[in-house]
Amino acid sequence: MASEFTLTRRVEFSETDMAGIMHFSNYYRFMEGAEHAFIRSLGLTIFEKTAAPAIGWPRVACSCEYKRPLKFEDLVDIHLTVAKKTEKAITYSFAFRKSGEPEICATGSVTVVCCTIREGRMQATFIPKEFAEKIDVHPG
Amino acid sequence: MASEFTLTRRVEFSETDMAGIMHFSNYYRFMEGAEHAFIRSLGLTIFEKTAAPAIGWPRVACSCEYKRPLKFEDLVDIHLTVAKKTEKAITYSFAFRKSGEPEICATGSVTVVCCTIREGRMQATFIPKEFAEKIDVHPG
Amino acid sequence: MASEFTLTRRVEFSETDMAGIMHFSNYYRFMEGAEHAFIRSLGLTIFEKTAAPAIGWPRVACSCEYKRPLKFEDLVDIHLTVAKKTEKAITYSFAFRKSGEPEICATGSVTVVCCTIREGRMQATFIPKEFAEKIDVHPG
Amino acid sequence: MASEFTLTRRVEFSETDMAGIMHFSNYYRFMEGAEHAFIRSLGLTIFEKTAAPAIGWPRVACSCEYKRPLKFEDLVDIHLTVAKKTEKAITYSFAFRKSGEPEICATGSVTVVCCTIREGRMQATFIPKEFAEKIDVHPG
Repeated sequence: MASEFTLTRRVEFSETDMAGIMHFSNYYRFMEGAEHAFIRSLGLTIFEKTAAPAIGWPRVACSCEYKRPLKFEDLVDIHLTVAKKTEKAITYSFAFRKSGEPEICATGSVTVVCCTIREGRMQATFIPKEFAEKIDVHPG
Repeated sequence: MASEFTLTRRVEFSETDMAGIMHFSNYYRFMEGAEHAFIRSLGLTIFEKTAAPAIGWPRVACSCEYKRPLKFEDLVDIHLTVAKKTEKAITYSFAFRKSGEPEICATGSVTVVCCTIREGRMQATFIPKEFAEKIDVHPG
Repeated sequence: MASEFTLTRRVEFSETDMAGIMHFSNYYRFMEGAEHAFIRSLGLTIFEKTAAPAIGWPRVACSCEYKRPLKFEDLVDIHLTVAKKTEKAITYSFAFRKSGEPEICATGSVTVVCCTIREGRMQATFIPKEFAEKIDVHPG
Repeated sequence: MASEFTLTRRVEFSETDMAGIMHFSNYYRFMEGAEHAFIRSLGLTIFEKTAAPAIGWPRVACSCEYKRPLKFEDLVDIHLTVAKKTEKAITYSFAFRKSGEPEICATGSVTVVCCTIREGRMQATFIPKEFAEKIDVHPG
């Protein structure tokens, strides 16, 4: 079972804004990228199209606090921990650091709900067994 | 029948980059926005989900030439003209100007092909009659 | 003095994702767009490049809760209210509704801090008088 | 001297659209990412802020042709070759393939001009020697 994961990626030019720093909305794309890489690391995928009905994980809440800006070409460690797991939902916590540096640049939280998707309609459902038995709440 | 359309929109902060200008990839989002607004102005929609099979208009080629930068809060006129229409494809041309100014800031071109979409697979098809009879090649 | 504002905009194709709904990160771009339109409605601009030093409003915290999905071509009202104002910071609250419908699709919050920007370094500063005297906390 | 480079990256959920494929505008972000990684591989950076005046590489023209769609979690090789080099400009060509597969999914071209940036104004300038002596036109 896994309860944490780190994705490392570099801030791209297209992710900066005219203030010279990474645009605040892109932190959410980074968090989602870390979440999906975590799921891939378990041998699973977040979007199971061939399931009938399709299974998805829409977000119901998310937040981010910004401490130090990230800039173009910064190499960033996004550290994911599983903060909470219920029968139908998972809450992930995130910490952003420049790679190899101890200071936290940003923290975030994302809560996803497992849903069936039938003709564009989403309905909460139980987390499939292959996910539930591999994802554990982080003790930290 | 219609052969041209103008969409006016403002450059957003999130569309700028650290060079202080609109990021070059966003011109394609603006062109697509103008194309979809043109189709809406005809009483139609670009993505007919309820059709069986679904109809979509994937891009097969696009290009853009940049003359003068666009900046945050610039109000931009994106002028679309229908450059070419075949049985299955349409080519749109675009000119970007700051609203009310004569100088062209950028020009672009996008070619879309009408496709059926079955389980994620796209296949070129004839442009539906309700589109074909409303869209005309611009004489200019 | 103003304490609320509504921006109406349409969900674009490029803002959707493969789940068929607006990608969750784009709600933050919509909130920022409403904030900047609010500031423009006061005759001001969020990014005063010609000031010496430059003044900017980086975000220190933001959050969003998603209730009902937004889809391609949905016309969306983003209703901004000023939730809190201190000497150096402002907190905005947001409610997303499909235009003309009573149900809330999403709510959000963004806290910005007024900063001077010198050579890429940001430092919190007092909100300039022309902003402070026009922005009021919403009584609601 | 170097005349080609390959960047490998994975298509993210936020880069897909409701048609279930990577949005066409994101190919330009991928091309730019490959260009910047190529420059980094030479020990240089595309945005030299500490130079006086600052040096940037705005795009003057770009294009893309789409052959086969890219989908969520596809691992993509973006192969860059230097197609042309003049005293002030470079044209890059790109080929997109799913990692390890021979079929080309898309091809593209981007022309950048070396510019000085003074107070937001760009002016074409000679490519700095440290760039010019490391970047070679591809013989292919």
